[in-house]
Amino acid sequence: MSNSSGWVVWVVWAALGSFCDAGWAGDRLLGFGAAESQAQRALEASYDALLDPADLERWMRTLSERPHHVGSAHGQANVDYLAGLFEQWGYQVRLARYDVLFPTPKRRRLRLLEPTSFEASLDEMPIAEDQSTASDEVLPPYNAFSPNGDVTAELVFVNYGVQEDYEQLERFGIDVAGKVVIARYGRAWRGIKPKLAADHGAIGTIIYSDPADDGYARGDVYPRGAFKHPSGVQRGSVMELPVFAGDVLTPGVAATGRARRLDVADSPVVAKIPVLPISYADAQPLLEALAGPVAPADWRGALPITYHLGPGPAKVRLEVEFNWDRVEARNVIATLPGRVIPDEWIMRGNHHDAWNHGAGDPISGLVALLAEAKAVAAQFPGPARTIVYAAWDAEEPGLIGSTEWVEEHARELTRKAVVYFNTDGSGRGFLRMGGSGTLQPFLAQIAADVVDPQTGVSVAERVAAWVKLNGSVKQQAELNERGVLRLAPLGSGSDYTPFLQHLGIASANLGFGGENAGGSYHSLYDTFAHYTRFGDPGFHYGVALAQVAGRATLRMANAEILPFDFSALADNIESYVDEIAELVEKLREDTLERNGMIDDGTFRLALDPREALGAPRREDPVPYLNFAPLHNAVAALTSASAAYGDAAAAGTLDDRRRTQLNQLLFKSERTLLDERGLRSRPWYRHQLYAPGYYTGYGAKTLPALREAIEQREFDAVDEAVRRIAGTLDNLTGTIESATKLWQVDAGN
Amino acid sequence: MSNSSGWVVWVVWAALGSFCDAGWAGDRLLGFGAAESQAQRALEASYDALLDPADLERWMRTLSERPHHVGSAHGQANVDYLAGLFEQWGYQVRLARYDVLFPTPKRRRLRLLEPTSFEASLDEMPIAEDQSTASDEVLPPYNAFSPNGDVTAELVFVNYGVQEDYEQLERFGIDVAGKVVIARYGRAWRGIKPKLAADHGAIGTIIYSDPADDGYARGDVYPRGAFKHPSGVQRGSVMELPVFAGDVLTPGVAATGRARRLDVADSPVVAKIPVLPISYADAQPLLEALAGPVAPADWRGALPITYHLGPGPAKVRLEVEFNWDRVEARNVIATLPGRVIPDEWIMRGNHHDAWNHGAGDPISGLVALLAEAKAVAAQFPGPARTIVYAAWDAEEPGLIGSTEWVEEHARELTRKAVVYFNTDGSGRGFLRMGGSGTLQPFLAQIAADVVDPQTGVSVAERVAAWVKLNGSVKQQAELNERGVLRLAPLGSGSDYTPFLQHLGIASANLGFGGENAGGSYHSLYDTFAHYTRFGDPGFHYGVALAQVAGRATLRMANAEILPFDFSALADNIESYVDEIAELVEKLREDTLERNGMIDDGTFRLALDPREALGAPRREDPVPYLNFAPLHNAVAALTSASAAYGDAAAAGTLDDRRRTQLNQLLFKSERTLLDERGLRSRPWYRHQLYAPGYYTGYGAKTLPALREAIEQREFDAVDEAVRRIAGTLDNLTGTIESATKLWQVDAGN
Repeated sequence: MSNSSGWVVWVVWAALGSFCDAGWAGDRLLGFGAAESQAQRALEASYDALLDPADLERWMRTLSERPHHVGSAHGQANVDYLAGLFEQWGYQVRLARYDVLFPTPKRRRLRLLEPTSFEASLDEMPIAEDQSTASDEVLPPYNAFSPNGDVTAELVFVNYGVQEDYEQLERFGIDVAGKVVIARYGRAWRGIKPKLAADHGAIGTIIYSDPADDGYARGDVYPRGAFKHPSGVQRGSVMELPVFAGDVLTPGVAATGRARRLDVADSPVVAKIPVLPISYADAQPLLEALAGPVAPADWRGALPITYHLGPGPAKVRLEVEFNWDRVEARNVIATLPGRVIPDEWIMRGNHHDAWNHGAGDPISGLVALLAEAKAVAAQFPGPARTIVYAAWDAEEPGLIGSTEWVEEHARELTRKAVVYFNTDGSGRGFLRMGGSGTLQPFLAQIAADVVDPQTGVSVAERVAAWVKLNGSVKQQAELNERGVLRLAPLGSGSDYTPFLQHLGIASANLGFGGENAGGSYHSLYDTFAHYTRFGDPGFHYGVALAQVAGRATLRMANAEILPFDFSALADNIESYVDEIAELVEKLREDTLERNGMIDDGTFRLALDPREALGAPRREDPVPYLNFAPLHNAVAALTSASAAYGDAAAAGTLDDRRRTQLNQLLFKSERTLLDERGLRSRPWYRHQLYAPGYYTGYGAKTLPALREAIEQREFDAVDEAVRRIAGTLDNLTGTIESATKLWQVDAGN
Repeated sequence: MSNSSGWVVWVVWAALGSFCDAGWAGDRLLGFGAAESQAQRALEASYDALLDPADLERWMRTLSERPHHVGSAHGQANVDYLAGLFEQWGYQVRLARYDVLFPTPKRRRLRLLEPTSFEASLDEMPIAEDQSTASDEVLPPYNAFSPNGDVTAELVFVNYGVQEDYEQLERFGIDVAGKVVIARYGRAWRGIKPKLAADHGAIGTIIYSDPADDGYARGDVYPRGAFKHPSGVQRGSVMELPVFAGDVLTPGVAATGRARRLDVADSPVVAKIPVLPISYADAQPLLEALAGPVAPADWRGALPITYHLGPGPAKVRLEVEFNWDRVEARNVIATLPGRVIPDEWIMRGNHHDAWNHGAGDPISGLVALLAEAKAVAAQFPGPARTIVYAAWDAEEPGLIGSTEWVEEHARELTRKAVVYFNTDGSGRGFLRMGGSGTLQPFLAQIAADVVDPQTGVSVAERVAAWVKLNGSVKQQAELNERGVLRLAPLGSGSDYTPFLQHLGIASANLGFGGENAGGSYHSLYDTFAHYTRFGDPGFHYGVALAQVAGRATLRMANAEILPFDFSALADNIESYVDEIAELVEKLREDTLERNGMIDDGTFRLALDPREALGAPRREDPVPYLNFAPLHNAVAALTSASAAYGDAAAAGTLDDRRRTQLNQLLFKSERTLLDERGLRSRPWYRHQLYAPGYYTGYGAKTLPALREAIEQREFDAVDEAVRRIAGTLDNLTGTIESATKLWQVDAGN
């Protein structure tokens, strides 16, 4: 499904002349000795030479020829095609099949009944210039995992439908109970919108793409430009992904034929109220029919109307009914066994299913993966560790193919998986990386080694330039003062989630973006014609992505010592703790100030008595919180990481100890899990990274703690601090064990 | 004409319990002894009792019954009506008549010739619910002091058409030479738009109101709501007001019958290229026809299109022709001679001419002035000083009535005018005051004495609440730490300009706003029906304005010691110097940083090579500048002001010395003039306050210095510093003379 905004920030210090300071001088690759570095670089040069943009174009043309959602005819054809390619290149190929719930629409209807009448077309218009858009195989616009429903009620406009929007509505005295809400796409995983609407008592949710966010206000619309056609609709799943990923009927276990299944009605992640996505052409008459207070300035989109909140007089009837069918999801798993350490797996994946033709999402990333797989297989000798390429099915409805596979192979993966590198839809411009903190220096070194196809500098330097021009004050300061841009933490929205957050496998998500114009996302218009005009014409960034992800895979596969870095992780964790401490201080001050202004009449005197907007609700003061256990744990972790670095710089290893060390290194990420999982969502076990419970895509670092504070559940803070500190202590213990493996000559 | 945004900030420290600290304890009025304060307060209570909202409504109904621009039939009727009212109340009434150039449209036509054809309607639609809008006497939409012209060229969109917009266009490689520009209203005095367009070689200017700034994106449009109707057009003058105000043919001298006149072609303030204002309904097809780069995000308005910059393929033909007639402007001057000091004049004015029916602009302010005049005249005994009420004509085309009168009576005014209090269109909500720094505590005390009609607290407290909720960080800090909000400096846009900036008469501009919704400004829809629904229903704020301005007039008229405050002025001047010093530092740092990013390739690497936007132009580094003379002058001024305060607190005066002191006090503002005036615009002589040469409405403090820096004319800085310091030294000398008048008993 690909979250286009979540992971823009990462490390470029490698690009900025810090190689030497960081202890890996000049051409020496992280994890390799000097001679081995040279050999590996030679291998990478031969690898690069095999990457051919014409391959990417041909594969995309084939894979995006027809719509290929899970269970579709072309989806099956693509699986066969992919399996054939991998086999032809010499991989051991297996199809992993799961029997998963995939609702498709049977009936969709939306009518405005009052004060005027209008029926939404719910159709996307074919474009003469783009033959793909004439297809009759595309699933019509809908939100998967909406329940069936037929509801009639007054309409309320809820902006993006996120928590702060409901707080604002409360200030206007507007209650959505018993109403249908209309929310615009953006700011959160779409599944959050019906969830919060239902939490507030609404009985239906309409989601539309406002042209301010995704349409003519951003740029010319398709086919003149890349942006969303007035009739375009963003499809997508609305399952409650922040609770668990994968098949909605088989949480935590693989959806094989014999799995025990929930009834649909009992699945905690199916939306509670009917949901339907519509175009801005269909949304305009609905919004125009609203009265009530004028929406706050930052709620207004770019439709040529005055936005009102309602409720009513607009009254709508929303009818949706689905085929609640189970379909077969088919992952293609292609393995190149390791020459030396076959039981350490380097995993690399991208999904193959799409909502439609899916040229951008996901084929643009998948063709880079194919280019990698082809070129990797051609290297001699083969990789030291096993490389596993995966093309996942059923990512779009809820990361289903990857999650079911991870759940099926959990024990083996826990033992063997070194790392998981994910891609998804990718574009043009700037390298975007997110991932586990331990991978930060490793990925930074790769970014410094790959050349940007447009400017000739490294892709790392291009990102650094972007940050210098456009970054936040904090990013610019870190770049200036420390040469560091942090690797963005991972939230959710693509197939790394089961690996990282359920199993504790170090992961990264890689892609290019920022210069490909968009508006085709999950719509009829995500076609080969659109992508090759506006996404990555010439596939130069597709090749660059194959260079980045291929290096990541190959270096991990061949490294003598796995290039995980504890100091970088410790430094990132410290920054998360600092951020949360700042968050608490700000929340405390803001609460005090706001309560003061409620009490002293400032709101009453400053607000227009003739308007509906009232003062906000008084909140309890924010208590002082004990973060000491966390600070102590971070201090111990930092010091253990430094000691490990010293030992590694000075020490030596025999083969047995190196094997032990590598096991400790890649399993260190497992120590960051807590088997009890996060509160209300035990499937998510990672204590550092999770998708926000109320945002869905966006990462929450130290989620148990951060969300307790954001939700003002201060009673939960002590327990969260204790658990996270305990997790960090486990990691510290692992690092200390790793340190002891290094044999340091006392004379040194 | 009224600038709705310029003067939102002022002092509320009186409201915040600082009375005692400031040395005027409890009920004691500034400038009055204890007993006199009581008498004055009793007088004000009797004054308040005579203010009747029904009067205001009746007068507005009459005055806004028909359009009444200068030279119109209803304009003449209004003059007679006003004169009759003043006479009836016992004033000595004179009409001051001037023979002034007032172009009116003969031909207006705007066509899109390519790539499609469209003819702009240029008409405002009548509204059934508002009979006034059916009038056939309204001047059609035009910009006064556009030259005649018939130009055909490609179109370029220039955003607001201010300097930074042209800098941005340069980065896109777009040159407006030989083109017609289309600019949106806002950000600057409208006359700046054709001026800058012509400076850049454009041959015509179209100005339109974008719905993002003034239309449906702000709120419901008329008649459902208050905001600009799609066909509504903002008329207005485009003379170069920042060069001089008043009749364009008689700069600096009164436009009497015998005055020497320039030829129109020689007037430096008539626009250089044809200009025409249009509605957003007419603008949309023109903007939609543009191609070229997509406009930057913050240039895009709220029309349902993708904004492009051009040039072309849109090609337009713009034809305008005017009747270049001279008409008679008639000010109504109503005098109530002072009982004690007839040669000290307290002046109070508001214009009476409008572009149309003018219910909001200017009648809403004028009816408050009438209420004051009626109630003032009913007080017994009459005022100690002379009170002069003025209803100005021909303000809309260029502050003409007031300026010609000021120019005619310059010598007498220089001798006699104590102060000028201006109002113009006024609304509902928050008291807005701008003016001379010496008036800050005086006006603050008044604001603390007048009760807000909606909330029952003082109007000062309401503003303080607004600032606490919505003010800038700096405003909030000053409010918290010092209890001070500064009186906003005056730029231009209403009739205080000739008094303050040409003659050096201490002035203030007063009004209410912030809660009256708008969109009728200078359009067909500025009617009685609109104002009484959306402006100030019930005229409660009209009465509050009469209470504020009436107190200002009456207290100045009766004060024993004129309540001018040098310490407040000195403190404000110090803040201007600090601001400019910060401006220089920021300019220096920004220039260095930007040049650095040009030189090191940051722009090249961060910008999309496939897009038109390039790096900015390199600027010369900002030199270090010598502000020492200014700091010394401010220090001397601050210390002289403190010494004056000490002497006044401890000393006594005999009658002769009090007379001398009052003369020194009110003439102190004259010392802030420099007879040579500002560079390129000698008519503007005030060294503290001027309208921005490139902004027009907005005030520039210490304009000679600030504009030299903003324009990067660093060679001009030393001279500006010297002149301003010299001016301040003159003021210091005056203050020292005033201090010496106080007889302080050595035993004290």
